[in-house]
Amino acid sequence: METRQWVLDSRPTGEPTADNFRLETTELGDPDRGEVLIRTLYQSVDPYMRGRMRDAESYADPWQVGDPMRAGVVAEVVESRHPEFEQGDVVQGESLYWAEHAVVDGDDLRGVNPDLAPVSTALGVLGMPGVTGYWGLLDVGNPSPGDTVVVSAAAGAVGSVVGQVARIGGCEVVGIAGADEKTAWLTEELGFDAAINYKTEDVAARLGELTDGIDVYYDNVGGPVTDAVWDHLNVRCRVVVCGQIAQYNATEVPTGPRKLAKLIETRGRVEGVLVRDYGPEQWGEALRQLGAWIHEGKLDYRENVVDGFENAPDAFLGLFEGVNVGKQLVKVADPEYAAL
Amino acid sequence: METRQWVLDSRPTGEPTADNFRLETTELGDPDRGEVLIRTLYQSVDPYMRGRMRDAESYADPWQVGDPMRAGVVAEVVESRHPEFEQGDVVQGESLYWAEHAVVDGDDLRGVNPDLAPVSTALGVLGMPGVTGYWGLLDVGNPSPGDTVVVSAAAGAVGSVVGQVARIGGCEVVGIAGADEKTAWLTEELGFDAAINYKTEDVAARLGELTDGIDVYYDNVGGPVTDAVWDHLNVRCRVVVCGQIAQYNATEVPTGPRKLAKLIETRGRVEGVLVRDYGPEQWGEALRQLGAWIHEGKLDYRENVVDGFENAPDAFLGLFEGVNVGKQLVKVADPEYAAL
Repeated sequence: METRQWVLDSRPTGEPTADNFRLETTELGDPDRGEVLIRTLYQSVDPYMRGRMRDAESYADPWQVGDPMRAGVVAEVVESRHPEFEQGDVVQGESLYWAEHAVVDGDDLRGVNPDLAPVSTALGVLGMPGVTGYWGLLDVGNPSPGDTVVVSAAAGAVGSVVGQVARIGGCEVVGIAGADEKTAWLTEELGFDAAINYKTEDVAARLGELTDGIDVYYDNVGGPVTDAVWDHLNVRCRVVVCGQIAQYNATEVPTGPRKLAKLIETRGRVEGVLVRDYGPEQWGEALRQLGAWIHEGKLDYRENVVDGFENAPDAFLGLFEGVNVGKQLVKVADPEYAAL
Repeated sequence: METRQWVLDSRPTGEPTADNFRLETTELGDPDRGEVLIRTLYQSVDPYMRGRMRDAESYADPWQVGDPMRAGVVAEVVESRHPEFEQGDVVQGESLYWAEHAVVDGDDLRGVNPDLAPVSTALGVLGMPGVTGYWGLLDVGNPSPGDTVVVSAAAGAVGSVVGQVARIGGCEVVGIAGADEKTAWLTEELGFDAAINYKTEDVAARLGELTDGIDVYYDNVGGPVTDAVWDHLNVRCRVVVCGQIAQYNATEVPTGPRKLAKLIETRGRVEGVLVRDYGPEQWGEALRQLGAWIHEGKLDYRENVVDGFENAPDAFLGLFEGVNVGKQLVKVADPEYAAL
């Protein structure tokens, strides 16, 4: 059968543009033993993808020009030659494709129970971003009740989980985001103690007013927002480095790090987090806990769903404009085989 | 009695100059109960003092203009009203004065045994810098045998201890320093596996040739040297932030930190160290071990002794020119009461 898929047409210089993507039609073979033919329902777009579009080694190999773009997707099973799955199952995988259909290794899929929550959440609060925020905060950030926790990109898929998990754990939580709609959501609906709009407020000054210093900073952005937080770090602070979206489009190699002297002053710890370091048991633990909090009404989430597979590049580009509240998704199709 | 002392005459802007110091004569009272009249034999000058000359809070209060400069000193006891000390004892204290004589709280002094090592070492390898390097490496850096350890300002008082302790612990050790005389000392006498002259060599390229990546980076300098190291950090690296001398004279507030994305890639940890976090037991443990290694011939050190109390500012200013090999000291007087 044929499928449409998005391929990397050229590497971006600076900010990515629609020209970096090309929609093509390709022929899919039949699934071999162990493989599954899937039909995408939702596709994720995430800031980390900007790194894969660059021709530079990082924690994963770069994507090659001409190759299909990769993504986390939620899909339904059309045809399965894998013992765990059958037609109509809803599945999720992280390193799949920007494609309407795909033949994939069944071992790369996990089942999604549509009765527990909307299946799209398997790409957000009950998926990679949720698990990242959960373990990044609890394992790397190691907060204690009463700690002041600040999170940047707080209205995003990861940040909104981080702030709520911190609040549930008895921390004072301040979120930083880039729109009044976002800061209002954080304080009025998610229970953040305060929120700062970095586009209209002086972040450093506001942090000075709002906090007695910062014990845990969960950093999704880097750049000037992190500079503003830096001067307010407390003794024995922990900085969780999860994302640096402010610098993903940098065309010049920045100098840095600077201001490490702050870590001598505070004996602070700055540490990176990567979700793939957490194995199936830790994924399971995070997802069970996050799911329970959703059902108890303690954890809320939002999704910003762009409709139509042809709009996937636009959805991705929107991440760098800071327009999405919550998890940015592309709705690719309604289910045909699955009963949702 | 009268004493000469150096006071902070003005705060430096950028690089400190001789004009920032003023030599004055002041009257000392007699020691009260618990106090000791000391006569300085050696005075230390250290990079951290640049921070105290600045009008900014850090981990310690800034010094005030017109106040005497503080320093670690080795001194002999002239008169004691403290039960632990008597005339002729050799003592060491960290937060004493740039002064020929002083009346100080005896609780701020520790006895120095002149039979174990030259008493000047109580300001270097067997003093604050040695303890800093020992615990900074072992506690914060947490090296394992076979790890690649890189240390900047490697020929300095702290760096030379760090590199040798790492070598004794079975690590591969690369030192970075600013003169061929220093790099030769590191490799030929201290047993470093390699050394790089950052003033004449491409540090990043040399690290690429010399190592398979860096597991522990002990940073005494910050700035471009740290930038060069940064790109070679290994997965699960540890960066010990001990000093940032490259930035101590900065007149503009630097942006930063940048390049934290490297910590996502590596899940690396960057953490500050401050020697005052280590209590008397840990000081004792470090000094016993370092002393034993010196006696076994496993640990070597150098001192760069500037003669004459009036030259103390020059000795301090030399720290920023990178001219000293090993611990920078000022010899203030020969002993009059102590038998050395």
